[in-house]
Amino acid sequence: MAAYAQDAIMLLGDSITQGGYEFNGIAARLAHVYNRKMDVINRGYSGYNTDWIIPVFEQIFATQHEQQHVPKVRLLVIWFGANDAAVPPKAQHVPLERYKANLSKLIWMVSSPESPRYSPDTRVILLTPPPVNTIQWSVRQASKDPPQQLDRNFEVTRTYAEAAKEVGRKEGVAVVDVWTKFWEGAGKVEADLKKYLTDGLHLNEEGYAVVFEEITRTIAERYPEYHHDNLRFVFAL
Amino acid sequence: MAAYAQDAIMLLGDSITQGGYEFNGIAARLAHVYNRKMDVINRGYSGYNTDWIIPVFEQIFATQHEQQHVPKVRLLVIWFGANDAAVPPKAQHVPLERYKANLSKLIWMVSSPESPRYSPDTRVILLTPPPVNTIQWSVRQASKDPPQQLDRNFEVTRTYAEAAKEVGRKEGVAVVDVWTKFWEGAGKVEADLKKYLTDGLHLNEEGYAVVFEEITRTIAERYPEYHHDNLRFVFAL
Repeated sequence: MAAYAQDAIMLLGDSITQGGYEFNGIAARLAHVYNRKMDVINRGYSGYNTDWIIPVFEQIFATQHEQQHVPKVRLLVIWFGANDAAVPPKAQHVPLERYKANLSKLIWMVSSPESPRYSPDTRVILLTPPPVNTIQWSVRQASKDPPQQLDRNFEVTRTYAEAAKEVGRKEGVAVVDVWTKFWEGAGKVEADLKKYLTDGLHLNEEGYAVVFEEITRTIAERYPEYHHDNLRFVFAL
Repeated sequence: MAAYAQDAIMLLGDSITQGGYEFNGIAARLAHVYNRKMDVINRGYSGYNTDWIIPVFEQIFATQHEQQHVPKVRLLVIWFGANDAAVPPKAQHVPLERYKANLSKLIWMVSSPESPRYSPDTRVILLTPPPVNTIQWSVRQASKDPPQQLDRNFEVTRTYAEAAKEVGRKEGVAVVDVWTKFWEGAGKVEADLKKYLTDGLHLNEEGYAVVFEEITRTIAERYPEYHHDNLRFVFAL
């Protein structure tokens, strides 16, 4: 039973977050640079969208009453959209307006004094979903047993990325625009997104490396007090 | 502020543990397979020996009174010896008998009903220090500014590994014998330990991969109820 030793970074997201300890991924990279400074709590849930995460988030983020006993979440990284943008009749689909409302709700849950989970020490970073490479993803879908239809659309995912940016501006939180970073890095050629993606949807090592660079740059700019270079070891010789 | 969502694996050790999120290391690999099942808490402290860790462990492992509020540590991995085995006059040196007594003390702290930190749900895994490759390590020491003397000895580290095994048998906890695994894997040729080590003391990706395999095999044999394949997701759709 671990006592409260270090504050934490919570990564809230879908399978792209859940996979963040593999491939030298985003969770492993953050945990490495924040060693002995902050713990990284991976709360990535494969398959989840913003509708389904809200009742989970209510259970994993402490209420004000509970907060005195548990590590403070200094940084909350919210990264959804890859599943919300699945096209109907896919069960994961969340309509664009509700996706935006859900993101706002998640931010409200930690940042509003009216919220039972109000946490004034928590800074939010909102990530846009990566662009989908439907050339890769259709191969992956066809390889399933039984074969699956293509359930993602390049332009639709783009609108979800734009929507996340809009929510970030409206709510005044930092945004890491993964979508644009990958799209520009791939020379705006869908097939070349394979540079960052294993299967058209999930990230490979280079994809995670880019996201790590963008997150730490954003922390330095927006929340420098929580940048790893500005924190001391909790226990030092 | 994270509520109590998942139980935990705590990794207690020195720099070899601290580095466990790098190089697809032991912390990253465990965190990946225990995703959505148990959190991995890295409590590796570069430079530490078993003398110095005890007062830290008193602060990072919850007392019985605190345990109701914080995640249960189901598995406690204790991995020291690489610094204890430094040769005098190195300040890190801990005499062999005190090294054994300190390891027993750490185990006692979580397993004795007399201990303020008694935690009956915690299973202990004790790791032996890896063999030191003094051919690599002397190059690393000489490259320092100013150059440093060689401060490790192959045979001395072997005696610390033997001592850790002896403590494991005496205390009835599982032991992962990293020393022997690496030594046999290197064909009992000191120079060939570079297969597992970056600098003669710390592990590279292959070294961590071997340790991961040995730890999960040991969990399957000794504490199968906590093996990742036998645990369910805490939140599942």
